[in-house]
Amino acid sequence: MSDESWRVYLSGEIHSDWRERIEAGAREAGLPVSFSAPVTDHAASDAAGTGTLGDESVPFWRDHMGAGVNAIRTQTLIRAADIVVVRFGDKYRQWNAAFDAGFAAALDKPIITLHDSELDHALKEVDRAAQATARTAEQVVDVLRYVITGKLP
Amino acid sequence: MSDESWRVYLSGEIHSDWRERIEAGAREAGLPVSFSAPVTDHAASDAAGTGTLGDESVPFWRDHMGAGVNAIRTQTLIRAADIVVVRFGDKYRQWNAAFDAGFAAALDKPIITLHDSELDHALKEVDRAAQATARTAEQVVDVLRYVITGKLP
Amino acid sequence: MSDESWRVYLSGEIHSDWRERIEAGAREAGLPVSFSAPVTDHAASDAAGTGTLGDESVPFWRDHMGAGVNAIRTQTLIRAADIVVVRFGDKYRQWNAAFDAGFAAALDKPIITLHDSELDHALKEVDRAAQATARTAEQVVDVLRYVITGKLP
Amino acid sequence: MSDESWRVYLSGEIHSDWRERIEAGAREAGLPVSFSAPVTDHAASDAAGTGTLGDESVPFWRDHMGAGVNAIRTQTLIRAADIVVVRFGDKYRQWNAAFDAGFAAALDKPIITLHDSELDHALKEVDRAAQATARTAEQVVDVLRYVITGKLP
Amino acid sequence: MSDESWRVYLSGEIHSDWRERIEAGAREAGLPVSFSAPVTDHAASDAAGTGTLGDESVPFWRDHMGAGVNAIRTQTLIRAADIVVVRFGDKYRQWNAAFDAGFAAALDKPIITLHDSELDHALKEVDRAAQATARTAEQVVDVLRYVITGKLP
Amino acid sequence: MSDESWRVYLSGEIHSDWRERIEAGAREAGLPVSFSAPVTDHAASDAAGTGTLGDESVPFWRDHMGAGVNAIRTQTLIRAADIVVVRFGDKYRQWNAAFDAGFAAALDKPIITLHDSELDHALKEVDRAAQATARTAEQVVDVLRYVITGKLP
Amino acid sequence: MSDESWRVYLSGEIHSDWRERIEAGAREAGLPVSFSAPVTDHAASDAAGTGTLGDESVPFWRDHMGAGVNAIRTQTLIRAADIVVVRFGDKYRQWNAAFDAGFAAALDKPIITLHDSELDHALKEVDRAAQATARTAEQVVDVLRYVITGKLP
Amino acid sequence: MSDESWRVYLSGEIHSDWRERIEAGAREAGLPVSFSAPVTDHAASDAAGTGTLGDESVPFWRDHMGAGVNAIRTQTLIRAADIVVVRFGDKYRQWNAAFDAGFAAALDKPIITLHDSELDHALKEVDRAAQATARTAEQVVDVLRYVITGKLP
Repeated sequence: MSDESWRVYLSGEIHSDWRERIEAGAREAGLPVSFSAPVTDHAASDAAGTGTLGDESVPFWRDHMGAGVNAIRTQTLIRAADIVVVRFGDKYRQWNAAFDAGFAAALDKPIITLHDSELDHALKEVDRAAQATARTAEQVVDVLRYVITGKLP
Repeated sequence: MSDESWRVYLSGEIHSDWRERIEAGAREAGLPVSFSAPVTDHAASDAAGTGTLGDESVPFWRDHMGAGVNAIRTQTLIRAADIVVVRFGDKYRQWNAAFDAGFAAALDKPIITLHDSELDHALKEVDRAAQATARTAEQVVDVLRYVITGKLP
Repeated sequence: MSDESWRVYLSGEIHSDWRERIEAGAREAGLPVSFSAPVTDHAASDAAGTGTLGDESVPFWRDHMGAGVNAIRTQTLIRAADIVVVRFGDKYRQWNAAFDAGFAAALDKPIITLHDSELDHALKEVDRAAQATARTAEQVVDVLRYVITGKLP
Repeated sequence: MSDESWRVYLSGEIHSDWRERIEAGAREAGLPVSFSAPVTDHAASDAAGTGTLGDESVPFWRDHMGAGVNAIRTQTLIRAADIVVVRFGDKYRQWNAAFDAGFAAALDKPIITLHDSELDHALKEVDRAAQATARTAEQVVDVLRYVITGKLP
Repeated sequence: MSDESWRVYLSGEIHSDWRERIEAGAREAGLPVSFSAPVTDHAASDAAGTGTLGDESVPFWRDHMGAGVNAIRTQTLIRAADIVVVRFGDKYRQWNAAFDAGFAAALDKPIITLHDSELDHALKEVDRAAQATARTAEQVVDVLRYVITGKLP
Repeated sequence: MSDESWRVYLSGEIHSDWRERIEAGAREAGLPVSFSAPVTDHAASDAAGTGTLGDESVPFWRDHMGAGVNAIRTQTLIRAADIVVVRFGDKYRQWNAAFDAGFAAALDKPIITLHDSELDHALKEVDRAAQATARTAEQVVDVLRYVITGKLP
Repeated sequence: MSDESWRVYLSGEIHSDWRERIEAGAREAGLPVSFSAPVTDHAASDAAGTGTLGDESVPFWRDHMGAGVNAIRTQTLIRAADIVVVRFGDKYRQWNAAFDAGFAAALDKPIITLHDSELDHALKEVDRAAQATARTAEQVVDVLRYVITGKLP
Repeated sequence: MSDESWRVYLSGEIHSDWRERIEAGAREAGLPVSFSAPVTDHAASDAAGTGTLGDESVPFWRDHMGAGVNAIRTQTLIRAADIVVVRFGDKYRQWNAAFDAGFAAALDKPIITLHDSELDHALKEVDRAAQATARTAEQVVDVLRYVITGKLP
């Protein structure tokens, strides 16, 4: 915590508006929270390496360069976070979200997972390492409100 | 420490006014302290899980959900604290207070316990892990004043 | 882990035979486990300080001396443990058991709690920090067998 | 390292023979390695909670119980490992494998990933956190041989 | 470091004006430094326990109580410090100064020792754990100025 | 991170203007970054010990004194940094730059190396421990911009 | 702990037979303990640097070299110890003993101090960081016997 | 330490017989030491990646792959070491040796550097982080003998 403000890292799915809904909900609730996240512009994220360090024609190394640059951001922000929210959607494999959850767990960061119940069985290890499993972005806001202010919705 | 301000976490009993007395005493003494605590609204605390994440009919899991949400708050605040005060009253089992004390001890947080002498024998392990055992909220304020300003009452 | 052997610390209640039942069960199952525990001779434990370091007439300091000597044993063994089992019975306040649980949790030790369901609500914070809550010593053996050998009973 | 023996944890896919091939290869090469792994009997793993701690009718909590028991094994073995190999196959979501990789990365464990190139893009964050990405179990053996003995195949 | 300000803990001798000289020198040099120290009022320090927690007639326990209260201050401030200066004078045994040095060394805090050359042999272990050994308070200021601004006097 | 500002330590070569170019680039890009560095005045750095703590005629000990004083600065700033950039030029042996890289790596700091490709083979271990290898100061700025703002140049 | 054996480091005074008495007592009691200690041959200890690394004519640097070599031994053994016993005699300043105590305390090693009561006030900070204060070597043996076997003398 | 045996990692120069001389000297002295080292077969080390994981035509990535595989070995062995000896010869840039030194220093491993005096100025930061600087392999053996047995040559 930076003084009275809580730092919340929002990991995972980048193709829906869950981050915006959590941020809007927290703003409406007047919570002292600062949010951080990976780069959510998919094209930019994929070009993180070649767009900064120069061309690379082999896909594996292009991804390797990009993932290195992205890791500077994500791992720094996760280390700085008080709480890590990890969202799993129904598309893509999202192994980076699960990786972030494992990374956060080993650093003793409280984790809130956010996903539909149909993913429950596949996510059981991740959910077990979390302090809470939410189904909606609004529930995440409710948890943050309670955690920070002690008030239930 | 956040700059010149000390962070003090007040763990334990939620059915008496000991927190208010410590906070009032610190304010009167003009101490640069910010206090934090678990949610002290008993009903809200018990509903921490179901009130945020949805209904759960089985008591064990209802408590499990609630305790997870509460842990996001308490463990974050204990990790952020400079000093942890742990209060044991004469009612309830208060295992969470003892748990917090053990948690704080393993994290090398200085602990001040606060309880009547009739609990001394039962609390001997906890008191041994503490740097000070106080009998009144006023003594806790006196310790904080001395620790922060070097002045005795 | 010391090579292929798992170290299990058995914390808590000292007035029933739960430790013997777990140890017997593990032996019958042929598990590579070494168990450790606090001193379970109540009289010796209370005299840990005065019996080694000399007389002390004031009860608080007598307990303080004893708790210090006991802590050398318990905290060393908990730090060395792979798994910590914490047993709560229906007698005594057992704050040291809850303290051990908090201590183990902050050190990232996997915890198995062992208690009757009537204590569930009072122990919800401790159970939430545990990876498993068992009702019988035999269930603890079953968990250990599965964890170590992958076999269900 | 336990004296001269290296501990290698084999995380991930449980439906192919990659573990056996690595273990056989290491044995043939005479490497001083001890391998550990999650429980690879799928049915047993899914029943880890109910098979040890008692019935649970709600799927989410049944998984929760099981994942807790499995975590006692997996997190202890990962913490004890010198090297973590993480295998991703083409079936299932395998979020637990990615979780293990993140967990291992935060604990500064060297990681070797093992997967086909068609998964490269989806696994780029995990591969970036690894020290090596292998395509076959035999390559993992070659890496282990080199790391431990300094000999190339 | 709290942003651009350096935290310097001044441990040791309380019967000469070395702290004031360092603080004055740093102020004159316009250094962004905040200083902290143990309670330097000898009488208050000795009464830290009884003056806050109540009377205690046995000298050993009186000191024990006082040392506990003082430790809340000193260990918190050492943990928060960027640099620890440890001063040894020619009077008293000053074991607490050497204790602080060992404590700071194990926490990887840079140490500057400050003492006359006649104490060199007796302090060789402490000096070896330090990054600099100064003979005068002015030299400590010179080191701080250089460390923070890069300028030599 | 200090709130929203990122701390970047610039280690290595002191005989070219790479630091100024990175700082200027970051300023132009409006990045919330604070930079730190070793003392880059070569003469002052070599006199860090004798200029503050007094004369020393033996070169080895003169360097030893100076390196101790410099280490107070460099190790404190590296520990406080979010990102460490390490620059290798074509002159001098620059073992301190490689030492800083190893130091930062063990502390889990993200590293960006900056050097010409002709040094690639000699720096392969250092580059492997880095998240990115840049060829120009401008590329470092591009990486910082992306990492902090998510924008590609 | 190395399996079932406890490692005890004996720090401090080298001019009396307290180590031999503790070792003999532990042997008689059949305790599974291995003892370690600094080099107790005073002349050898003072020549640790020059006797291994070559001559050095300046006393400060001669001590510096020697203290460095001795620190390789002492700090390694303290880090490896389960329990640290620190003995203060009535001669010499013994700052290294107090340094070791501070070092051990910051590493969370249980400490047993051993000294006469006339040193109590001067050693109050060190004693407060210890779990037990003994007056005789035999009491240390009694504490070790109890801690390891649970038996009082 | 693995029981009574000390683990010594020998980092750096691979083109002279300094490792053999240290190992022979330790053997003659009957020291309980086990030595470890990076792969010292230069060709094998350079082919560590392509020889195990498959071809790679681009030199930067070939080195990158090789350095990753080598890092599995070196960082594991450094983490497991009690003492790290770092040798700098007069050829090559040996940045990996300096990197290892920084890595070891941040992990609080005692370091012994081994190099000629003509490299003193260039190595001053590395030497300052070391507990001893030796000029010959025999001096390293002398330090090890003293550290382990307390005997001077």
